[in-house]
Amino acid sequence: MTPTRSAYLDHAATTPMSPAAVEAFAAQMALTGNPSSLHADGRAARRVVEESREQVAAALGARPSEVVFTSGGTEADNIAVKGIFWSRRVTHPERRRILVSGVEHHAVLDPAFWMAEHAGAEIVLLGVDAEGRLDVEALRAELAAHADEVALISVMWANNEVGTLQPIAEVVAAARPYGVPVHSDAVQAAGKIELDFAASGLDALTVSAHKLGGPVGVGALLARRSLDITPVSHGGGQERGVRSGTVDAAAIRSFAVALTEAVDTRDAVSTRVSALRDRLVRGVRAAVPTAVLRGPDPLGDGAARRLPGSAHFTFPGCEGDSLLYLLDSAGVRTSTGSACQAGVPQPSHVLLASGVGEEDARGALRFSLGTTSSEEDVDLLVEVLPEVVERARAAGLASAGIGAGRSRQAQEAHG
Amino acid sequence: MTPTRSAYLDHAATTPMSPAAVEAFAAQMALTGNPSSLHADGRAARRVVEESREQVAAALGARPSEVVFTSGGTEADNIAVKGIFWSRRVTHPERRRILVSGVEHHAVLDPAFWMAEHAGAEIVLLGVDAEGRLDVEALRAELAAHADEVALISVMWANNEVGTLQPIAEVVAAARPYGVPVHSDAVQAAGKIELDFAASGLDALTVSAHKLGGPVGVGALLARRSLDITPVSHGGGQERGVRSGTVDAAAIRSFAVALTEAVDTRDAVSTRVSALRDRLVRGVRAAVPTAVLRGPDPLGDGAARRLPGSAHFTFPGCEGDSLLYLLDSAGVRTSTGSACQAGVPQPSHVLLASGVGEEDARGALRFSLGTTSSEEDVDLLVEVLPEVVERARAAGLASAGIGAGRSRQAQEAHG
Repeated sequence: MTPTRSAYLDHAATTPMSPAAVEAFAAQMALTGNPSSLHADGRAARRVVEESREQVAAALGARPSEVVFTSGGTEADNIAVKGIFWSRRVTHPERRRILVSGVEHHAVLDPAFWMAEHAGAEIVLLGVDAEGRLDVEALRAELAAHADEVALISVMWANNEVGTLQPIAEVVAAARPYGVPVHSDAVQAAGKIELDFAASGLDALTVSAHKLGGPVGVGALLARRSLDITPVSHGGGQERGVRSGTVDAAAIRSFAVALTEAVDTRDAVSTRVSALRDRLVRGVRAAVPTAVLRGPDPLGDGAARRLPGSAHFTFPGCEGDSLLYLLDSAGVRTSTGSACQAGVPQPSHVLLASGVGEEDARGALRFSLGTTSSEEDVDLLVEVLPEVVERARAAGLASAGIGAGRSRQAQEAHG
Repeated sequence: MTPTRSAYLDHAATTPMSPAAVEAFAAQMALTGNPSSLHADGRAARRVVEESREQVAAALGARPSEVVFTSGGTEADNIAVKGIFWSRRVTHPERRRILVSGVEHHAVLDPAFWMAEHAGAEIVLLGVDAEGRLDVEALRAELAAHADEVALISVMWANNEVGTLQPIAEVVAAARPYGVPVHSDAVQAAGKIELDFAASGLDALTVSAHKLGGPVGVGALLARRSLDITPVSHGGGQERGVRSGTVDAAAIRSFAVALTEAVDTRDAVSTRVSALRDRLVRGVRAAVPTAVLRGPDPLGDGAARRLPGSAHFTFPGCEGDSLLYLLDSAGVRTSTGSACQAGVPQPSHVLLASGVGEEDARGALRFSLGTTSSEEDVDLLVEVLPEVVERARAAGLASAGIGAGRSRQAQEAHG
């Protein structure tokens, strides 16, 4: 049974490419020329890359020379965390601490923990409040006590699960007196809210194209020229020597077009998408009164503290995966927002860090809107949600019974 | 003055996308869905990725589970060299040697040397003969003396500058008794000559899409399931945990289409391109009798020891860059085949390793043909080459005078 209507509410995972970005990609794909080649065809491709670099820089308040194109947000985060740590180890071997918020994306957390295992780093997980917002006092206290042991700080601009904006200005202000470099993963924020690299005072910032209307497979690390970064991949020495590999002119051109468009239309899109998000929050609360909104409440005083296009709820007594699959069957595409590793659903580290109990955290769903979202999308969700939640709850009770059975068996096997 | 005719003879740098690959990319770009998302749109994208994985595996004699998609050849080489070394360090800390040929691409050499600086690796550069072909005896001697200190061997399938095929079967046979894993960068070989991963006995192999009619920004590392590889980038844990980052369904689908097409048409293309290459070699020799072919002579007995589509010459008394720019002005796109770092032309490490003198190595040009190449392309080169070489020689003599002057000034400044 295929539902006749469908609603894509997973724009935070990936969002449709804008028609202009598709067109730019197609136009460049038809041309041949490696931007590192010195002949006319290579130089033509290089010009496209450099013009795109200028566009990306202009859209994000950076200088062209600060833009390092990468294969996406994950690579940019890896370069930031490892590259800054390794380069600082040369001049400041005593600086082994990496300070990250407990709600970072895995693309920041996993490189940091890998550096702990392989390069002698010490990870300090900074706490967050119930909305998932960084405890800046904890950061200040950590810096006051150990600033001369800190290699870098990485705090995301906006959380990818609950949508909470982080106090980047306060993080930068806290770090500045100690000269500690600060990186921010702005993958969910870029193109959606105002973001100016120069004004931010950040040393490095990550952007991904496919979250803002561009193609998958391209992103950028903005990095101040004064910031030393040890390359993470090695080869032809492209992109300031920081990121080797043939420069992808088509993807970069498409990225620049999408980002420029996103920034140019940001206010209008944000207004429209925020209104849809509010409609969704109202609708979900009316449909399922037991649902608990996570992150700042946009219908309360929280609108300014969160992304315009996302809403996150926990549904007591439900498994997020059950909700996801039941909604999917009804045509509604969503995400639990939590990592599912090796087929075992794990409660979200973001919710746990925000003080949500493990049981409640299991019933999480993220709804994220984008440029193509409509009232019909929201209304379909609200229409099907009550029955979905009811069935998920019933399934939860049933599997809890099975789970208890399994658990007994396991005990017996160990006994 | 724009030349009315032009000839693209730089297919080894990047080659035009096949129309089918462009179409596949465009079709997937129009769809939205992150292959890691669990809903229907995500699963549809995942199906495309897995079908493409099967196609890539079938085209290269591998199993689907052995295909790790990457952002390109450079990333695949980095994963192979670093990932194998790091994983072997856990079980065999005494194995610190990385054996590579002296003619590897920088995407292998630079990661290897970085591991020497940062991870305690010792690099053993294996010699090559005058054709640029690995000295297998030197490899056997190294293994006989130090096999229990060797972490891995990396020898390319075909050289990117002179086009020489490497004796991969002999390398694998030499390594097998010692259980040393062997990686091969097959970026220039895949799709152009017969290549079967299972039959090769290799443990890992690198492929890049944009060298065979696919898009820039995607490639693969083929890796046996039994081979432990420490991830080089960290995050969402995609691609067996070896390569994190949103999986690029459009690029992967396009890559699979291009590779399948290249393999299906390989014999016919190879025959046609070899004939063009022979025409080019004959033409260049007739036009510039002092030109020296590098690598195996396809008009002698060397055709089977080299790639079908490339020819490499040195032009005594000329700078490669002068030749490149003068040919470019005449509409002919070529490459010196040597790295040009920080604006300073460096003689090719491939030629130097093959015993070519530094002076001769400076006058190198690579001509590489592909599916879109024609007799007209070759004939244009041959037509304009005599005057180009004459002017490059004159420029060389002039700049030698200037260089001597500069050198004196430098000495004076230091004195």
